[in-house]
Amino acid sequence: MSKLRCHISISLDGFAAGPNQSQENPLGEGGMQLHDWVIRLAAWREPHGYEGGEVNESTRIVEESRENVGAGVMGRNMFGPPGGGPWGDEQWTGWWGDNPPFHYPVFVLTHHPRQPLDMEGGTTFHFVTDGIERALEQAREAAGGKDVLLSGGAEVVNEYLAAGLLDELELSVAPVLLGDGARLFDDLGDAKVQLEQVRVVEAPGVAHLTYRVVT
Amino acid sequence: MSKLRCHISISLDGFAAGPNQSQENPLGEGGMQLHDWVIRLAAWREPHGYEGGEVNESTRIVEESRENVGAGVMGRNMFGPPGGGPWGDEQWTGWWGDNPPFHYPVFVLTHHPRQPLDMEGGTTFHFVTDGIERALEQAREAAGGKDVLLSGGAEVVNEYLAAGLLDELELSVAPVLLGDGARLFDDLGDAKVQLEQVRVVEAPGVAHLTYRVVT
Repeated sequence: MSKLRCHISISLDGFAAGPNQSQENPLGEGGMQLHDWVIRLAAWREPHGYEGGEVNESTRIVEESRENVGAGVMGRNMFGPPGGGPWGDEQWTGWWGDNPPFHYPVFVLTHHPRQPLDMEGGTTFHFVTDGIERALEQAREAAGGKDVLLSGGAEVVNEYLAAGLLDELELSVAPVLLGDGARLFDDLGDAKVQLEQVRVVEAPGVAHLTYRVVT
Repeated sequence: MSKLRCHISISLDGFAAGPNQSQENPLGEGGMQLHDWVIRLAAWREPHGYEGGEVNESTRIVEESRENVGAGVMGRNMFGPPGGGPWGDEQWTGWWGDNPPFHYPVFVLTHHPRQPLDMEGGTTFHFVTDGIERALEQAREAAGGKDVLLSGGAEVVNEYLAAGLLDELELSVAPVLLGDGARLFDDLGDAKVQLEQVRVVEAPGVAHLTYRVVT
C-alpha cells in the first residue's frame, strides 16, 4: 500500500529549523547547518541545477528517499516565507525556481486558497486549505499507488505523527545544537507513537536514522 | 590528556529520563525503555551480577565505554532517589548493591555533605558539595591520567556541556518517544557548543552516536 514517508534533517537537539525564521532566513538562525551534509552532494546539486559535488555514503540515502514517490505534501513555511512577505502573493512560486526538483504533484498545506500552480518539469503545487487528512487523501490519489513524501516542516510532521498517519520517518541528524527553533516531536499530545528502528547509516557529517511507525 | 567523557542513553526526542521521576520509578515514566538495548547484553549483565545475555553490535560500545576510565562523576539523582526518600540518609549506598559495577572512585554531586563510602570491588563514592568544576578536578586527580566518565543525569551533563568541560559525548538513542522528562541539551544558555561527529554505529534497537566537543 502507498505509504506516507518523511525525510527531514534535524539538529542533534531535535530542531528542524533554528529560531527567528524569516523571509531572509527561512531556516532560522543556524538552520542552514542542518543541510550542510546534503548540499555538498552531487545527488542534491544536479536536480537543483548546480554542478559538481561529492558522492559519499549519503548519496544512496538521498537517492532512496526519491524512489517510488508519486506525490508530496509540505507545510506552508516550506513553500514560502512565514509571516507576510510575498506569502499569499499570487506571484510567489516557491523557493526552487522555475523547475522545482520534485517532478510530481505537491500538496501545500495553507490557509490561503489559491489555484494550482504548474511549474516546469512536472511539478504542480496544489494548495490545500482543509487540513492534513484531506491533503494526504489528495496526494495519495495523485500518487497512483506510489508513496507520498512529507517534506516538513517540523510542525506539519508533528501533526501527521500525532494523527497516526505517518508510516516511515527518516531523520538526518546533523552534529549541531540549535538551542531553539522548530522542534520535531513536540506537541504530540496524548498520541502514543510507537517506533521501530529500521536502519542506521553513518555518513560524513550526518547520521541517518530510519524508523517505522508501528501504531 | 585525561578526557571527560559521557555515555548516556536518550530517547529519540532527547530525554534521558521520563516524566515524574520518583523513588519507585527513578527513570521516570517510560524511562526504562531507554535501557532495553543494554540490559539484554551479557556485557551489562555480568558486571551487574546477572547471568546470560546477548552479544551483538552494542557489546563493543559498552566495552569501549569502560576502557581507560579511572574515575566517575554523577549527579545526585543517579546515586539516589530524588526528593526525599532515603536521599541524605546515611544508610543509602546507591542503586547497585554491595559491589557496584564501577570499580573506581565515583564523585557524586550533591548538596548534602557525607563521608566517603567504600564499597566492595574498588568503588568508593565521594560526595562533592562544591560544584561541578571541583568534582571534575577531584575525579581527574583520582583517575591518575586515565579518563573520567560522566554518567548523567541529563541536568549534570548539560551543566558540564555549558561550562565547556566535556570532551566527548556518546549518545545511545533508543527508538522511543517519551514526550517529557529530563531533556539533554536543555538550558545551555549562551554556551556555543560545537560538535564533530566521530562515529555512528547501528545496533539492535539502538543507534550509537559519538561526538567530540570541539570548543
